[in-house]
Amino acid sequence: MADYQKIDSYLTNHLEKSIQELSRLCAQPSIAAQNHGMQECASLVAEMLSNRGFAVEVLPTAGAPVVVGFRKGQSDRTLLFYNHYDVQPAEPLDLWESPPFEPTLRDGKLFARGVSDDKGHIVSRLFAIDALLETNHGELPCNIKFVIEGEEEIGSVHLPEFISQHKEKLAADACVWEFGRVDFREVPLQFLGLRGICYVELSCRTADIDVHSGVGGSIFPNAAWRLVWALNSLKGPDERIRIDGYYDDVIPPSERDRQLIEALPEIAEEYKQRYGVREFLKGMTGGVELRMAEVFEPTCTICGITTGYQGPGTKTVLPAYASAKVDFRLAPGQMPEKVLASLRKHLDEHGFSDIEIHYLGGEPPARTDPDDPFVQLVVNTATDVYGTPMQIVPLTGGSGPNYPFIHELGLPVASAGIGYEGSQAHAPNENIRLDLYLKGARHIARIITEFA
Amino acid sequence: MADYQKIDSYLTNHLEKSIQELSRLCAQPSIAAQNHGMQECASLVAEMLSNRGFAVEVLPTAGAPVVVGFRKGQSDRTLLFYNHYDVQPAEPLDLWESPPFEPTLRDGKLFARGVSDDKGHIVSRLFAIDALLETNHGELPCNIKFVIEGEEEIGSVHLPEFISQHKEKLAADACVWEFGRVDFREVPLQFLGLRGICYVELSCRTADIDVHSGVGGSIFPNAAWRLVWALNSLKGPDERIRIDGYYDDVIPPSERDRQLIEALPEIAEEYKQRYGVREFLKGMTGGVELRMAEVFEPTCTICGITTGYQGPGTKTVLPAYASAKVDFRLAPGQMPEKVLASLRKHLDEHGFSDIEIHYLGGEPPARTDPDDPFVQLVVNTATDVYGTPMQIVPLTGGSGPNYPFIHELGLPVASAGIGYEGSQAHAPNENIRLDLYLKGARHIARIITEFA
Repeated sequence: MADYQKIDSYLTNHLEKSIQELSRLCAQPSIAAQNHGMQECASLVAEMLSNRGFAVEVLPTAGAPVVVGFRKGQSDRTLLFYNHYDVQPAEPLDLWESPPFEPTLRDGKLFARGVSDDKGHIVSRLFAIDALLETNHGELPCNIKFVIEGEEEIGSVHLPEFISQHKEKLAADACVWEFGRVDFREVPLQFLGLRGICYVELSCRTADIDVHSGVGGSIFPNAAWRLVWALNSLKGPDERIRIDGYYDDVIPPSERDRQLIEALPEIAEEYKQRYGVREFLKGMTGGVELRMAEVFEPTCTICGITTGYQGPGTKTVLPAYASAKVDFRLAPGQMPEKVLASLRKHLDEHGFSDIEIHYLGGEPPARTDPDDPFVQLVVNTATDVYGTPMQIVPLTGGSGPNYPFIHELGLPVASAGIGYEGSQAHAPNENIRLDLYLKGARHIARIITEFA
Repeated sequence: MADYQKIDSYLTNHLEKSIQELSRLCAQPSIAAQNHGMQECASLVAEMLSNRGFAVEVLPTAGAPVVVGFRKGQSDRTLLFYNHYDVQPAEPLDLWESPPFEPTLRDGKLFARGVSDDKGHIVSRLFAIDALLETNHGELPCNIKFVIEGEEEIGSVHLPEFISQHKEKLAADACVWEFGRVDFREVPLQFLGLRGICYVELSCRTADIDVHSGVGGSIFPNAAWRLVWALNSLKGPDERIRIDGYYDDVIPPSERDRQLIEALPEIAEEYKQRYGVREFLKGMTGGVELRMAEVFEPTCTICGITTGYQGPGTKTVLPAYASAKVDFRLAPGQMPEKVLASLRKHLDEHGFSDIEIHYLGGEPPARTDPDDPFVQLVVNTATDVYGTPMQIVPLTGGSGPNYPFIHELGLPVASAGIGYEGSQAHAPNENIRLDLYLKGARHIARIITEFA
């Protein structure tokens, strides 16, 4: 039986040192979308694992390398941690209060791009391992593996293939997912599934060069208009996605899903305050309806559009080229390849064969059973740290590569981590709270110990 | 009777010097849309007029200053030249073969932003005046006024009010417009009217900050979608503008207009080659139908859209803000204020009261009678220079502030200038041909002489 008091005491006393290590990791940009700093960041992560006695490999893929670490422990059981070292782009830069790659402590928080998503999770897990090694005669209670990829923020493009190719190397008995957080009541949440995603860029070219709008306006095709009409054909103000058969494969939520969602707290006012959103779609005002829609509805989101003149004032120009980034979040049952094929068919059938589709990545949705013993272990070990067991969220709106972990490696996947609602992941001023960083490490130490 | 041989000989011998003066003017950026270099450029233009003995005033407006010059001549008749010293933005910069504000001679052409639109026209007129002064004992044959504004490329926002306030100062008997050009057969064209314009920025804000698309995709309004749907409500793929009553005030072209257009050459293949446009709207393939549509059809053109993430790769974000620049080209009879009001009404009635309209400028359409004696003078004096009289174009697709000249000052307005079809106005690698620069100056010298 581990001495959690000793472990917690170690963590409290070494917090500053761990935050220094985290700051060093956050100071290294690793923007997958811009292929910026990936190799350097992978090396740094590998070094951090080596320092803890892990056997480390930095394995190439067709994209960013994957860092795999293994250290034997006292029991035969193996726990796999999945994390990623890549981060979102930092733009818009002018909205950051401190530079995104100069980690800054303010008000009990550490600010930096990637500090919450996902570098803080990586280092907090290493921090828990430090505490275990320190209090357990330099031994880990069980085998621990890490798989830390560098393309999560661009759809984990090469991870599924990587997992297929390294099934033996990654074999384990259970997996702890890259993230976890408390909600606004400080209750830790257990996220048991992810929506899928299909991310595309739609583009159109109507001429070789932009044309004076006084010349071409009434007689030349306009790439911006073509794109607007093509987008409009995908979804109207009723929010119904118009691609033929888009909803056919959706597995509707079960009664159990609804009960789990019902048990979760109200989110409407919280969202309004946090994002400054004025209202919700389709007249929804809150309650279980809003929470069900948030995660179980498939989506079609315009993430960005660029075309023509975008500077100050006016320029009378007819754009020759236009493009839009669009992501589809997939409900359980939908598959990205099928959505991609339906999208092409839809555009062709609606007169938009001139719109090109560039597939930027996709992941199928996947879920873990809430009754799995590993899930229960993770949920219950939280009580000692947070004063309450984790509350189960049957599905989350985000996406990630959990499909190959669940369906290829055959693992139960549970989440545990250091996030909170104000962490501004994917937005300016991304941050973590130091108190939750400490709690996250305490929870991980308990998960490893009990799992062993 | 003027000695055109002496005049032409002067022009041929002093071309290099005039091009140097033009290069100096083009090296001074004067981008109205970005309020960049306006005062400096106005001063430079004023200096150039002063050097020719003009009484010059640089008069303030709420925007860029207007340069007004006057020099008395031998006859009592007064000819007014309208020009502008502002230029379009130079973006996209990477498509320029030489820097836009470093005028460069290549293949008998001078390349620079604004060299054709409209600085080359200004300096070629001063060049003609130099030749007249030199060959006419230092005297001008008639009174000459210049009004050179600095906001033409942003819709001449303050010029109509300026003209109303300075009617006496600008009083004249006829006006030479800022531009003119030969077509691809080298035949000079006489442009007798301009479409109007109403230029707006449409924008929408749905939240204070961009939101992770995994969180907001199914429940938060998306500014990009709102804008796409609002734009789609304005015009569909059939190109019919859906604003209620939009076409009501349009005065259809007359039989005479059609005859003048019929006399003009075919443009279809020329446009395909010049712009790399693949096809024309509404199945048009060329002929008089295409040429009539080009100028007599009112338009609704998306000039640019910006929203969300536009960098490389993916960012899973739901945009909080989106905006589009849109210009409406107005057929004879339409007025910009009315279009603006109809647009607001349309958006409100179609559920888009969340879309804000920022009016960036407008100009009514206006036309001069092809039978006006001044028009005939300008048309016929071209024969001696180009070997053919000018061919009359009853209306052009572009816009400009000719309405107050025609309807406030009561002037016939005719065009004459140095442009050609490859001048790339409003696009990268804007240029003039030196041979046409010389011809333009010769034509202006004849217009002034015969007008006197």
